[in-house]
Amino acid sequence: IDVFDHPEFRGHEQIVFGHDAASGLKTIIAIHDTRLGPAAGGCRMWRYESGDAALTDALRLSRGMTYKNALAGLDFGGGKAVIIADAQKDKTEALLEAFGTQVERLAGRYRTAEDVGISTADMDVVARRTAFALGTAKTGLGDPSPYTALGVFEGIKAAVRFRLKHDDLSGLTVSVQGLGNVGFGVARYLYEAGARLVVSDINDRSVARAIETFSARPVDPNAAHKTDADIFCPCALGAGLNSVTIPEIRAGIVAGAANNQLASDQDGKRLLDAGILYAPDYAINAGGIISIALAGPGDKDTLVREKTIAIGQTLTRIFERAQTENLPTQTIADKLAQERLSSAV
Amino acid sequence: IDVFDHPEFRGHEQIVFGHDAASGLKTIIAIHDTRLGPAAGGCRMWRYESGDAALTDALRLSRGMTYKNALAGLDFGGGKAVIIADAQKDKTEALLEAFGTQVERLAGRYRTAEDVGISTADMDVVARRTAFALGTAKTGLGDPSPYTALGVFEGIKAAVRFRLKHDDLSGLTVSVQGLGNVGFGVARYLYEAGARLVVSDINDRSVARAIETFSARPVDPNAAHKTDADIFCPCALGAGLNSVTIPEIRAGIVAGAANNQLASDQDGKRLLDAGILYAPDYAINAGGIISIALAGPGDKDTLVREKTIAIGQTLTRIFERAQTENLPTQTIADKLAQERLSSAV
Repeated sequence: IDVFDHPEFRGHEQIVFGHDAASGLKTIIAIHDTRLGPAAGGCRMWRYESGDAALTDALRLSRGMTYKNALAGLDFGGGKAVIIADAQKDKTEALLEAFGTQVERLAGRYRTAEDVGISTADMDVVARRTAFALGTAKTGLGDPSPYTALGVFEGIKAAVRFRLKHDDLSGLTVSVQGLGNVGFGVARYLYEAGARLVVSDINDRSVARAIETFSARPVDPNAAHKTDADIFCPCALGAGLNSVTIPEIRAGIVAGAANNQLASDQDGKRLLDAGILYAPDYAINAGGIISIALAGPGDKDTLVREKTIAIGQTLTRIFERAQTENLPTQTIADKLAQERLSSAV
Repeated sequence: IDVFDHPEFRGHEQIVFGHDAASGLKTIIAIHDTRLGPAAGGCRMWRYESGDAALTDALRLSRGMTYKNALAGLDFGGGKAVIIADAQKDKTEALLEAFGTQVERLAGRYRTAEDVGISTADMDVVARRTAFALGTAKTGLGDPSPYTALGVFEGIKAAVRFRLKHDDLSGLTVSVQGLGNVGFGVARYLYEAGARLVVSDINDRSVARAIETFSARPVDPNAAHKTDADIFCPCALGAGLNSVTIPEIRAGIVAGAANNQLASDQDGKRLLDAGILYAPDYAINAGGIISIALAGPGDKDTLVREKTIAIGQTLTRIFERAQTENLPTQTIADKLAQERLSSAV
């Protein structure tokens, strides 16, 4: 029982265990780094098998948000909340309100938002008790997926420009793996830009819809990475880039919305050695947090779109420096984030 | 690594693990219960052998403060901070300031104060970073010991009144065990009220001073409880009332300043069965926290003295109800505290 010696502890500034007897709330709010501003990151509700699993998640994800927010140019630090509960069975208004109280107690040092197991509607309940809930009906732009999709599209264009020295997507083939809100949105942008689409999803109806809307060609989700394409765009589960899949990839570019695409740090090196240009996941999929972090009440989305479109420029910087230093793009992304963090002090 | 399942976890509202890389600060701030008001309790600096030992201390002591503050009639909840550090070697201004920042981040939900390893002067350093440090040179009445001593003296008088049906201490013999700031202060009050003193301390100079000042009779500290006296007044280490010592006590009253006097819950029952009137430790020694909690900048100590003298009335209520219900006085003290807490909701 030693938080400071936990294997995932990396100098986190504050880790708050919050409890409310009446509603049964048990939450861990991890604030990793606030050098750039108050910590921002979603709240995840999950039926963790142990308190340690919950703490591990909170420590790891909050640190990820520090890097993501820094690289996205947001004036926010990294934080994340987990609620130890079953979103299907335990989610009550009292529980969500009690979580809001815990957030409010941190007086703005942590801004919460939706995440796995927590919807925008849930955030409205949380917001009854705190002024520090982002992306609610009142303060937000609604579903952040369209902005994530826009950012990924801009990232793909930046990768094409860097690798193929032109801007035109027409005639290029993209394998989009995963057709959820984000993946489908990316597919639409690509289709409208003239790309040919290969699509895959475990949900047959999504695949059917993509075939109809985008004249896409379907493949098995497990073959999405090895299909003949110019660009592989993973928008489903994490850890899809690993020692098994990387040698099978036929595309010269990997650029998609999925979180934690690299199964391990070595896989960044593997992509480099294979000559594949990889758009680091947390750089290219930042549109969602940008829309959540920057939207104000009654805002137009001008600023959000601007910052999201700038993801393309960030990726260009990453690609260029990675080439100069002959390092994996993920390593360069981490460096850029660390440099912004260091200069903030 | 499971805070919520820790054996000492008792529905604590918030447990904050705070860290500062630059100064090396590692602190745990436990906020047990804020139904009566913001949590108040000291900050202890200790070289804990493990993170678990530090957490155990924070959980246990913060809960103790909830009961102590409630019973003392303070509009404060229970909290406690521990800093994992060696007060002899690791205590730097940067460390204390970083602790102040952690306290400030809680925005007033926890008010800190001196405790083991942390002096009033240290609190002045902490107060550079937070408005929520109590008992500093600016806001406090200085050393809280005189108020603890006053409260213990009032408690002894209440016990004598209840047991012997008179107010007069002259002619009564009191064995004062421990002659630190508090014990010596209690001895002075008793001497001035005409009591005969038997004194003991591991420090020979303190004993010599008490002999000279109060015409006291010395005994070995280990025999203080079994000396022939009307009142045994433990003002040294905790756990002095246990299955070995209780049968040896010759006094009819035990009333002193030491913390955690009962080695176990059963010892409250042992004292009851032995016909010994016991003044519950956290009720009688509340003068210190009263002086720390209620003193404002430039205050006279009128209110503090009033609340401290009221410890006598609180003890009288405890003694009467313990007699009516035939329960240990410690149990009644807990009940009174719980009743005040429940009625606060």
